[in-house]
Amino acid sequence: MKAIAYFNDNKSRFLDELLELLRIPSVSADSSKKEEVIRAAEYVKEKLLEAGADKAELCQTDGHPIVYGEKIIDPELPTILVYGHYDVQPADPYDLWDSPPFEPVIKDERIYARGACDDKGQFYMHLKAFESLVKTSTLPCNAKFMIEGEEEVGSSGLEQFVIENKEKLSSDVILISDTSIISNDTPSITVGLRGLSYVEVEVTGPNRDLHSGVYGGAVANPINVLCDMIAGLQDADGRITIPGFYDNVAELSEAERTEMAKAPFDLDDYKRNLNIKAIKGEKGFSTIERTGIRPSLDVNGIWGGYTGEGAKTVLPSKASAKISMRLVPNQDSDEITELFRKHFESIAPDYVSVKVTPHHGGEAAVVSTNSDAYQATVKAFEAAWGKTPIPTREGGSIPIVALFQKELRVDPILMGFGLDSDAIHSPNESYGLFNFYKGIETISYFYQFFSEEKQQA
Amino acid sequence: MKAIAYFNDNKSRFLDELLELLRIPSVSADSSKKEEVIRAAEYVKEKLLEAGADKAELCQTDGHPIVYGEKIIDPELPTILVYGHYDVQPADPYDLWDSPPFEPVIKDERIYARGACDDKGQFYMHLKAFESLVKTSTLPCNAKFMIEGEEEVGSSGLEQFVIENKEKLSSDVILISDTSIISNDTPSITVGLRGLSYVEVEVTGPNRDLHSGVYGGAVANPINVLCDMIAGLQDADGRITIPGFYDNVAELSEAERTEMAKAPFDLDDYKRNLNIKAIKGEKGFSTIERTGIRPSLDVNGIWGGYTGEGAKTVLPSKASAKISMRLVPNQDSDEITELFRKHFESIAPDYVSVKVTPHHGGEAAVVSTNSDAYQATVKAFEAAWGKTPIPTREGGSIPIVALFQKELRVDPILMGFGLDSDAIHSPNESYGLFNFYKGIETISYFYQFFSEEKQQA
Repeated sequence: MKAIAYFNDNKSRFLDELLELLRIPSVSADSSKKEEVIRAAEYVKEKLLEAGADKAELCQTDGHPIVYGEKIIDPELPTILVYGHYDVQPADPYDLWDSPPFEPVIKDERIYARGACDDKGQFYMHLKAFESLVKTSTLPCNAKFMIEGEEEVGSSGLEQFVIENKEKLSSDVILISDTSIISNDTPSITVGLRGLSYVEVEVTGPNRDLHSGVYGGAVANPINVLCDMIAGLQDADGRITIPGFYDNVAELSEAERTEMAKAPFDLDDYKRNLNIKAIKGEKGFSTIERTGIRPSLDVNGIWGGYTGEGAKTVLPSKASAKISMRLVPNQDSDEITELFRKHFESIAPDYVSVKVTPHHGGEAAVVSTNSDAYQATVKAFEAAWGKTPIPTREGGSIPIVALFQKELRVDPILMGFGLDSDAIHSPNESYGLFNFYKGIETISYFYQFFSEEKQQA
Repeated sequence: MKAIAYFNDNKSRFLDELLELLRIPSVSADSSKKEEVIRAAEYVKEKLLEAGADKAELCQTDGHPIVYGEKIIDPELPTILVYGHYDVQPADPYDLWDSPPFEPVIKDERIYARGACDDKGQFYMHLKAFESLVKTSTLPCNAKFMIEGEEEVGSSGLEQFVIENKEKLSSDVILISDTSIISNDTPSITVGLRGLSYVEVEVTGPNRDLHSGVYGGAVANPINVLCDMIAGLQDADGRITIPGFYDNVAELSEAERTEMAKAPFDLDDYKRNLNIKAIKGEKGFSTIERTGIRPSLDVNGIWGGYTGEGAKTVLPSKASAKISMRLVPNQDSDEITELFRKHFESIAPDYVSVKVTPHHGGEAAVVSTNSDAYQATVKAFEAAWGKTPIPTREGGSIPIVALFQKELRVDPILMGFGLDSDAIHSPNESYGLFNFYKGIETISYFYQFFSEEKQQA
């Protein structure tokens, strides 16, 4: 394939371009980084034009802009729409990084930087596969790109953009590389994703910080109360206690569960990799099921009182936490957020007041394995990796998958190339050079096989 | 009384001197403030000499120095030893202060600053009462001063100093102003203090921060686990569940409880002042008992995961908390710390590891109301306030009281003039000018009555 020869000749430039993008601290959650976010968007636009797009533009939203680009070679040919995001997670705690998060380094054949995998490294593969096809005049279909800057803060501007630009975004498949494969020996395709409800809670006791000696024992401490309330959100069997929480959870058949259990999984490896002695989760389900088909609840952050050096004997006025729930098909994110709010307010004792603030959410999604696009993906993996990929359900959330299904009526393909060990959202995030290059190859094959499938259809 | 006339003539200078001391951010817990702590010590030494001490010196410890000063007019006369501390609590959260904590302002007849009451404002009264007596040649006895710089971090250097300087510190009474009165209409003398055990706990789950989507539901979240563990430290009746915790608690007789219940206390006022709808505490005890004669457990600080702006879907590796227990007579601080550690380790599930680090602690204390010194205190209050003070038990801890009793074999008098509303350890700490001045007056009378009592004896 000509495109792959071109890619092989330009590998080191492709990598340099990605490193330049990784140097831009486009943290969408941090309002002080707004200009850096714009700078990343401009960079993506410029690279789309250099790669061969007919046009590329920054589309304004209420938040950070969406980069849109396209190359239409023939309206009669199929169209691939690529989705990705150029924003990244906050990088703190900085002191746990071995090298600064926005000064990428290559070590042991891996790129270390915030966003190396999620999602700069992954979406950038699409620009380079596209370039390889265009520059060798082998692009077999039309290509569109929609690279957003708010994925890590809930994609709030994207929904309106999608609704208002259905024509512009019309396509035959949406390609997304923002997920993982099982391992470099066992490629896989994500066919299920969990949804998300994310809330922040604040518990207020007395109207000011008190001396814990003078008041301790007589006045409720909001940290203790928050701990009690959080502890009560799950029972001894690891089930979430919010009334109605499981009402709409889609239950899998025994046959489906048996099929899922075939995926290779080694619990000892899993525990060794995380350095934990035991796992914990909902009774009656395997680890793969717990993250794949069952909802979960995690405290993502907690704070209150004195957290500095030494000891301070304070009985604080307030305590707060960020709590998220991962959802599965048929659970509605807004509905779950509302159930949480009602429940949390109802269990608040009368000696405190509570405030529940919803952050972003998103719906769970399941991708069909019967489509042309899915078959083309299988073939592309077989061509690039020499192995048939395994369909898997992943625990993370990409809320826009459900949005695309609903608004654009096109099934996305989740063609991610990350690994669990990439440590996305963590210090020392990294992405393997092998995965970056193999991804470009797989995507290039996909264009070819997908166009063939569509033309045969 | 000549001394009181002198004091009235010098009131505004006394106040200015205190304000200058309050401008020094002598935060003992903050290692970056070491030089400021020394500066405060030097200031106290200089003011002791100016007030009329024969000598004053900085005594080195492993931590911050102790300021010692004395005036011996006749070895045959009684000796008063004054204890105080020139270090202050950390001032954060800074944004909750109406004016900067180390730029004292006078507003509505109150001094606003960190340390205004605890303990700079309170111990400085002693220097000025002493000056008033010396300068008017009416000092009726010997005076010694021991003003330390580590009270807010556990007085770790003081114990050795006291043990090694028993002769130097010999006295007939130890005067301490670091407690509160019931109100300006109802003066009181603290005759009981709680002890303290203060620990920091860290719960570790996986070896790195994880993506809560990929792992949520399958791997124990250390924040959730910490909340569970903290929630389990108290039962539904507000009793602490650590085995053996109550074994040595001194129980009061019905007569003693009846006596305690006579202290004026208005629950509605108490709740209104704190803006809480309900109180919470150990079943079967009144609010005054809960802080006076019963032990308590409070989380003073908690932290873990992402606590910045917006949302981050992290399942963190670690979660931590600072937890303190207030103790009552016959509970041993070290023993309780050890019981806590054992219990906390024993309730840790096998999917996490826990680390318990003890901070400083101290023993509870009870002061006799039958001594000459106590009688002299009652008379001094009657002379200065026109009212007989009520004996009370206070919830806070001054661990050095038990130390003095054990090593120096002298009963301290807790002659504090603060109010609950002074907000010590909180933002906007303040101290009433009325209390500052009335305190100087009371202390001056004490010198007179104490010398008389001793000479009669």
